[in-house]
Amino acid sequence: MFQEQVAKKNVIDDDKFHDECGIMAVYGHPEAANLSYLGLYAQQHRGQESAGIVSSNGRRIWHHKGMGQVAEVFPEDKMRELRGWLAIGHTRYSTAGDTVLLNAQPLIAGFNKGTVALAHNGNLTNARQLRRQLEDSGSIFQTNSDTEVILHLIARSLKKDFESALAESLGQIEGAFSIVLLHGDRIYAMRDPRGFRPLVMGVISRSQNLPLGPELGREECYVFASETCAFDLIGAKYIGEVAPGEIVRVDAAGPHRFRFAPEMPHSFCIFEHVYFARPDSTLFGRSVNGSRDALGRQLAREAPADADIVVPVPDSGVAAAIGYAAESGLPFQFGLIRNHYVGRTFIEPEQNIRDFGVRLKLNPVRSLLEGKRVVLVDDSIVRGTTSRKIVRIMREGGAREVHLRISCPPTVAPCYYGIDTPNQKELIAANYGVDGIREYVGADSLAYLSLEGLRNAVNDKAGEFCTACYTGNYPTKLTPANLEALHRR
Amino acid sequence: MFQEQVAKKNVIDDDKFHDECGIMAVYGHPEAANLSYLGLYAQQHRGQESAGIVSSNGRRIWHHKGMGQVAEVFPEDKMRELRGWLAIGHTRYSTAGDTVLLNAQPLIAGFNKGTVALAHNGNLTNARQLRRQLEDSGSIFQTNSDTEVILHLIARSLKKDFESALAESLGQIEGAFSIVLLHGDRIYAMRDPRGFRPLVMGVISRSQNLPLGPELGREECYVFASETCAFDLIGAKYIGEVAPGEIVRVDAAGPHRFRFAPEMPHSFCIFEHVYFARPDSTLFGRSVNGSRDALGRQLAREAPADADIVVPVPDSGVAAAIGYAAESGLPFQFGLIRNHYVGRTFIEPEQNIRDFGVRLKLNPVRSLLEGKRVVLVDDSIVRGTTSRKIVRIMREGGAREVHLRISCPPTVAPCYYGIDTPNQKELIAANYGVDGIREYVGADSLAYLSLEGLRNAVNDKAGEFCTACYTGNYPTKLTPANLEALHRR
Amino acid sequence: MFQEQVAKKNVIDDDKFHDECGIMAVYGHPEAANLSYLGLYAQQHRGQESAGIVSSNGRRIWHHKGMGQVAEVFPEDKMRELRGWLAIGHTRYSTAGDTVLLNAQPLIAGFNKGTVALAHNGNLTNARQLRRQLEDSGSIFQTNSDTEVILHLIARSLKKDFESALAESLGQIEGAFSIVLLHGDRIYAMRDPRGFRPLVMGVISRSQNLPLGPELGREECYVFASETCAFDLIGAKYIGEVAPGEIVRVDAAGPHRFRFAPEMPHSFCIFEHVYFARPDSTLFGRSVNGSRDALGRQLAREAPADADIVVPVPDSGVAAAIGYAAESGLPFQFGLIRNHYVGRTFIEPEQNIRDFGVRLKLNPVRSLLEGKRVVLVDDSIVRGTTSRKIVRIMREGGAREVHLRISCPPTVAPCYYGIDTPNQKELIAANYGVDGIREYVGADSLAYLSLEGLRNAVNDKAGEFCTACYTGNYPTKLTPANLEALHRR
Amino acid sequence: MFQEQVAKKNVIDDDKFHDECGIMAVYGHPEAANLSYLGLYAQQHRGQESAGIVSSNGRRIWHHKGMGQVAEVFPEDKMRELRGWLAIGHTRYSTAGDTVLLNAQPLIAGFNKGTVALAHNGNLTNARQLRRQLEDSGSIFQTNSDTEVILHLIARSLKKDFESALAESLGQIEGAFSIVLLHGDRIYAMRDPRGFRPLVMGVISRSQNLPLGPELGREECYVFASETCAFDLIGAKYIGEVAPGEIVRVDAAGPHRFRFAPEMPHSFCIFEHVYFARPDSTLFGRSVNGSRDALGRQLAREAPADADIVVPVPDSGVAAAIGYAAESGLPFQFGLIRNHYVGRTFIEPEQNIRDFGVRLKLNPVRSLLEGKRVVLVDDSIVRGTTSRKIVRIMREGGAREVHLRISCPPTVAPCYYGIDTPNQKELIAANYGVDGIREYVGADSLAYLSLEGLRNAVNDKAGEFCTACYTGNYPTKLTPANLEALHRR
Repeated sequence: MFQEQVAKKNVIDDDKFHDECGIMAVYGHPEAANLSYLGLYAQQHRGQESAGIVSSNGRRIWHHKGMGQVAEVFPEDKMRELRGWLAIGHTRYSTAGDTVLLNAQPLIAGFNKGTVALAHNGNLTNARQLRRQLEDSGSIFQTNSDTEVILHLIARSLKKDFESALAESLGQIEGAFSIVLLHGDRIYAMRDPRGFRPLVMGVISRSQNLPLGPELGREECYVFASETCAFDLIGAKYIGEVAPGEIVRVDAAGPHRFRFAPEMPHSFCIFEHVYFARPDSTLFGRSVNGSRDALGRQLAREAPADADIVVPVPDSGVAAAIGYAAESGLPFQFGLIRNHYVGRTFIEPEQNIRDFGVRLKLNPVRSLLEGKRVVLVDDSIVRGTTSRKIVRIMREGGAREVHLRISCPPTVAPCYYGIDTPNQKELIAANYGVDGIREYVGADSLAYLSLEGLRNAVNDKAGEFCTACYTGNYPTKLTPANLEALHRR
Repeated sequence: MFQEQVAKKNVIDDDKFHDECGIMAVYGHPEAANLSYLGLYAQQHRGQESAGIVSSNGRRIWHHKGMGQVAEVFPEDKMRELRGWLAIGHTRYSTAGDTVLLNAQPLIAGFNKGTVALAHNGNLTNARQLRRQLEDSGSIFQTNSDTEVILHLIARSLKKDFESALAESLGQIEGAFSIVLLHGDRIYAMRDPRGFRPLVMGVISRSQNLPLGPELGREECYVFASETCAFDLIGAKYIGEVAPGEIVRVDAAGPHRFRFAPEMPHSFCIFEHVYFARPDSTLFGRSVNGSRDALGRQLAREAPADADIVVPVPDSGVAAAIGYAAESGLPFQFGLIRNHYVGRTFIEPEQNIRDFGVRLKLNPVRSLLEGKRVVLVDDSIVRGTTSRKIVRIMREGGAREVHLRISCPPTVAPCYYGIDTPNQKELIAANYGVDGIREYVGADSLAYLSLEGLRNAVNDKAGEFCTACYTGNYPTKLTPANLEALHRR
Repeated sequence: MFQEQVAKKNVIDDDKFHDECGIMAVYGHPEAANLSYLGLYAQQHRGQESAGIVSSNGRRIWHHKGMGQVAEVFPEDKMRELRGWLAIGHTRYSTAGDTVLLNAQPLIAGFNKGTVALAHNGNLTNARQLRRQLEDSGSIFQTNSDTEVILHLIARSLKKDFESALAESLGQIEGAFSIVLLHGDRIYAMRDPRGFRPLVMGVISRSQNLPLGPELGREECYVFASETCAFDLIGAKYIGEVAPGEIVRVDAAGPHRFRFAPEMPHSFCIFEHVYFARPDSTLFGRSVNGSRDALGRQLAREAPADADIVVPVPDSGVAAAIGYAAESGLPFQFGLIRNHYVGRTFIEPEQNIRDFGVRLKLNPVRSLLEGKRVVLVDDSIVRGTTSRKIVRIMREGGAREVHLRISCPPTVAPCYYGIDTPNQKELIAANYGVDGIREYVGADSLAYLSLEGLRNAVNDKAGEFCTACYTGNYPTKLTPANLEALHRR
Repeated sequence: MFQEQVAKKNVIDDDKFHDECGIMAVYGHPEAANLSYLGLYAQQHRGQESAGIVSSNGRRIWHHKGMGQVAEVFPEDKMRELRGWLAIGHTRYSTAGDTVLLNAQPLIAGFNKGTVALAHNGNLTNARQLRRQLEDSGSIFQTNSDTEVILHLIARSLKKDFESALAESLGQIEGAFSIVLLHGDRIYAMRDPRGFRPLVMGVISRSQNLPLGPELGREECYVFASETCAFDLIGAKYIGEVAPGEIVRVDAAGPHRFRFAPEMPHSFCIFEHVYFARPDSTLFGRSVNGSRDALGRQLAREAPADADIVVPVPDSGVAAAIGYAAESGLPFQFGLIRNHYVGRTFIEPEQNIRDFGVRLKLNPVRSLLEGKRVVLVDDSIVRGTTSRKIVRIMREGGAREVHLRISCPPTVAPCYYGIDTPNQKELIAANYGVDGIREYVGADSLAYLSLEGLRNAVNDKAGEFCTACYTGNYPTKLTPANLEALHRR
């Protein structure tokens, strides 16, 4: 397998998780590519390093991909070329330079059952083994992406019709996958049987829009996205989730739902609610903002602090901090201001400015912090280096005491289902106890939310959420070979 | 005078003020241009449409300007060309395409007293008259900018030495000006006698930095900026303001302060505290965040509401909303999420999506708003069109009642001192009473802060703030000719 | 199979052939990618619409491709990323927008025998059949390019070692191929058994260069290119051709040559000598300039004209025109000036200027043409439309008579071996006799070179050249299915 | 006066002259800017480093300038913004990076007589003195360009009407100037009394074009350019030259010609015919190609060589070489091939390739040169370094003898009238005799054309050409102060 060079990660992002991607699909709209663009735009937080859209009129395919944020990748002239009334899109986080363009999604391939374009959110746990088998029987791989395996499986399937081959292939892959797929004049949306990653479905009815053009027989346009915030922007109505283990096909007859796998215990990613998803989204049937508020409230009950004000680490810690403040009765204050004009590259002075990378993003409000005992609320500590810098900045900004509160349990285990966590050696909570972490980050006190508190906050009575990153209990079987391949990535 | 074509304003920004610019200067640092870049970067909110930096080693000058945000205008290779140990910079809002590049600052000119580079924040009220006089005596103008007048006045002055000529020229111009200027191996900073616009001074001491290179005799590097947030990023310590009517010269002997005008009543722009400045800045001796919190608290006392939650219009309404919530005892909630990935251009679907421009920026959190009576806190209503859309979006997001609260009095008069207000015809409060506005924007109730409340909140006992936009009482004499020229712009 | 949109061809190029590509490979040089860049640069005339380079240190691979000319595709920062001491490169003509990037070469793929990068010049005549078979057995295709077939064949081969699999695969493909390939720490160069397209080999000896770095054991660096002009620029010495039916492997032991196919009659592309190749190249053992001079001389003998001057259509007609002039005794004159600053896009006035596209490239020199009887020498007439415009321009420039002389026989049949000829319907000579063409282009007289004269001029006693485009006699078997697939492209 | 950094000249251009610029103007055409673009495009050889166009509808002005070649500076969206029916344009060679943008022309200024845009080809010999006087009386300068002086003089003139002020100002400047100027709804074209630089006038009649739009009363559109090749491309008919000392005004009443200076002896730049102008242009009433052919013939008579072939240094030496070959009876051969794909930047291998810069542009054709005695014809030797490399390349390409023939006399003196010659110290012919030069460049023989031969070849019986670069006899008075200022540049 060929390797690619890995660009140095941007120093200011080195302590956060990165979701793999956001996906989007549109069926039956004369501006399918434009709506996909907007859906990706609204989901930009799920991946800012590359984007791609494939559109079709059911007979021909148009596509464009590139490195960068959605608005950079798709100038107006590119958008005009993406014709047709079906489209799928993908936006993703990746770690390297533009040599990675080969890996950018949607992937497109032609084979014996026609041409397929596919966009995938999640991580397959048996991709390497499948790849080896496929290579052994003569398949060639043009990307490093797990996703390419799926295309090969469909092509290799002995099932004659496309849908049977698709269902068979999905039965062979393990791990997390939410997928949208374009085949001929149809859109397919599907989700792994445990439902790790979200995938929601919506509709744009004719009453909200102008006539849809002569070739579009239906009155409704159907859309799919990773998060509901994509629907809000394009005026689509949320219908519900693509169920775990389900395939939804949309064609001229409308949506048709069928299962490719038996029912199985669910493993919704709790971290989507803790950190990743936009607060205005609804995922796994719950409001993200509501979850975070509840996490903050629970945290205030479990780990109160003798303090003057509650300050969030923006933006992801805001909702939990509001909950914490409300529950504790302490005043909520924006004591750290985030600079929203951060461009892609910047000049760093050669003469060292301490914690420069964090300062570029966050600036303390001295008038608020001066002499105060502060509860600082964040959503996670990964390596600990960024938290250490933020605590230091708080003190330089005048805070007398800094009581760090984390709105989830300690992150002790890597994710193999689509969250880009560092490996265990780099996870500070996998190597130190809470007091060791407190000492390292320099806080006056440190508390995490309990696992039970976490489950309560999201009302997880049925145990439907995956909490492997906090417990190390992975819901799928991971063979030693799986694990070795996953770690080598 | 030649005219330029005016690009259509971005539809989503059509209802907000735009400050003219942010300025920056650095004396005595081996990375003067880099620090200026960072200072402009931190002040990006003061103007995002063009940027420029001029640097010098006291003998030669290097410069670069361009259209766009700071990080776009100055890629690394451009920065490397900006050598020397003195620099000034400018970032500005402007309304037109790149044909405006001629107007971009800093302006540079050579004349009988050497070469000068100059960056100006503010608006001169007698620029047109001065320009006409200068043209009549044979001066040529290569920009449309008021600022060019200043250069001509210095060149025309009969005073032999540069500083006397500078002081004489400043005596001839009226209105608002905070200026940084590079002349030979000196930096000058100066502010109009009423002090309309802010201008702060800071120092970077050697203890924080490495040796400054052989040609730099001093241990301190001096910096100037519109706002203190620029200092935080580059590790500079805030010393104080350049006083109204004062010139500060920095050269090898360090800073030297002298007045070019007698003391005069002050007219600090209140709107910097209400809306423009970054909350983590200190301006006119006060914390901006502190002012906004006080405005919100005062507003809660003056205009309470029978409601369930307090929601800000982000980002500028946040601090006042927190104050309102704290004072009123109502819960503070982030009921509108701002999309921070807004690029410069975007695709708008041809099939109309209602309030699309605002939706692209702001999305309601349904789980928070559903069935709630909401106090919506914003910092101003200009034309009313955006407020109307936001109220509508709140209702569509589930809000049962929307009680709009504005953290300043009604904006009834245009600003002639550097804020880009629309003219009186377009200001809704200049044409309708509070109830008419309430009806137009569709709120259940609407209240503005009182003028007295505003003054109290910023503790303006001495009447040092200009509140002309709320009263129409302009602190400087504006002749009919002045006004006509100002309106024609 | 998925389709791509086809951009409108540039109007001014509509009447010329377009070769598919130029290729380049470097083994054993510390600046392998830089030399590949320069080799592509020198072969830019073989394809100006996309370019790609893959480099390697024998363990890792780096790559970059893009749309545009070599100097556009590879700015300095991209070149710096292409490390290692082996490299292959490709530059190509293509007909569509950047959606074609998927097709850009070199292709890279990982499979059971490692990772391979491959660049191909030529056209396979049985690619569609092979593709269908491969798809039927489960292969997926990510490009529209014939070349991908080769990768699949190698992957599917039951031969265990790479070289045997490679040789076996080459035995399955038909048509024209000159290929350079990078596999592990080796470079391979190979050419189809008939040798349609050129492929030359050269050496850079240590005496001409600095030490080659510690990891490079050998004193010689080996290079391959489509044309020798690539060697001149990088200071490489021409050794000879890769023989038809031969594979050359270069590794630490130096070059090793072996055959993958039995000897077969040769079919060197005569059109490389007539039009495509650079005149300073040596191809198929002959100087291109020498061939063209001989073509011109032969043409003068076969088709003299009662005229005053000989004028070439620049640049490709120049050498033949010099030969014609020398043989005929008529003065050679540059009566058409070519504008060499033609950029990629240009403004065309809406108000029609006759023959604008051709005028942009060619301008007549009135002082030379005024009242003259001109022999106009060109290398081919394809559709006739451009020739017609040029004749018209000559007359408007003052020429009294225009005697058009073509330095090869009429082009009556499309090429299936790598030259992008239009189909038969569009070839004027396939549809009209010489007099009909003369009438259409508006010349006073028209003559083509005879087939026998062509063979004599390139001294083709052994019948080693392919002249199918002039005769319709194709040297390889083309089944009806082949032809249909080739025409559908 | 402020200085700018000077970028290192491109190494491969280090031995050639660079003209200052080409100019263009269009009156009365609905696509005035487009035609200006095409006129600049056709004159691209006169300056490739920056370009600018100003257009107007008689009331408003639009403009765009940038660094780079015309096609780079003016993408389609920029062109669409340049509305109106009058336009002037400028393209220029310059030596520095984009900091020079301030100097780019056309210059635009507003003053007491309205707004003026102006484009200038040539060099003023008293600009520095005038500038000092203007600065002393209070003018400010925003460029380093001589041209700005002209604007100030017009603004300072006591004449009330614009034309009188213009004429008065032209009387104050000395040296070389061909100028086009846009003022209100008029175009002006003017030329210095000695006529150093060319300026031609043409017309586009309605019969060649569609109706010109309602606001354009006239049936003819008038155009001006430096060279007639600009007219050929846009379908304009050459009328004649703007006479030395003449101003041509074009307005609704059509063209009106009047003198601003008395008749004076002419000083047409001979170097335009020897090297600069395009061969298909007509300048100073003569065909450039005709002049070059005559120079080559005369050179053959004056300096025959016992040789086998005549080879030009392309492109500028081609016409003279054809003349030489015709006169001498030796065969003309293209023994050096020029690579026309030279991009702006390129990769140079770190490991030295001898004469790389020249090789990138020129490649010898071994089959032609092998064993031959070659007459190599070039248009000039400046520093001698490039000639030395070319002679070496010829020998490496197989030439047995190289007889260098230069189609003009030795260049012994710098030009002060618009040609960017190096100073005398760097001119090899100012420091060495012919034999010393021959030895340095390594030729077997070297001969220059005689001054008398040069005059005969261009039929200069009346002594109307300036030959100062070959004689040091400058046609204008140059005071020591003049010279010092000119040398300091």
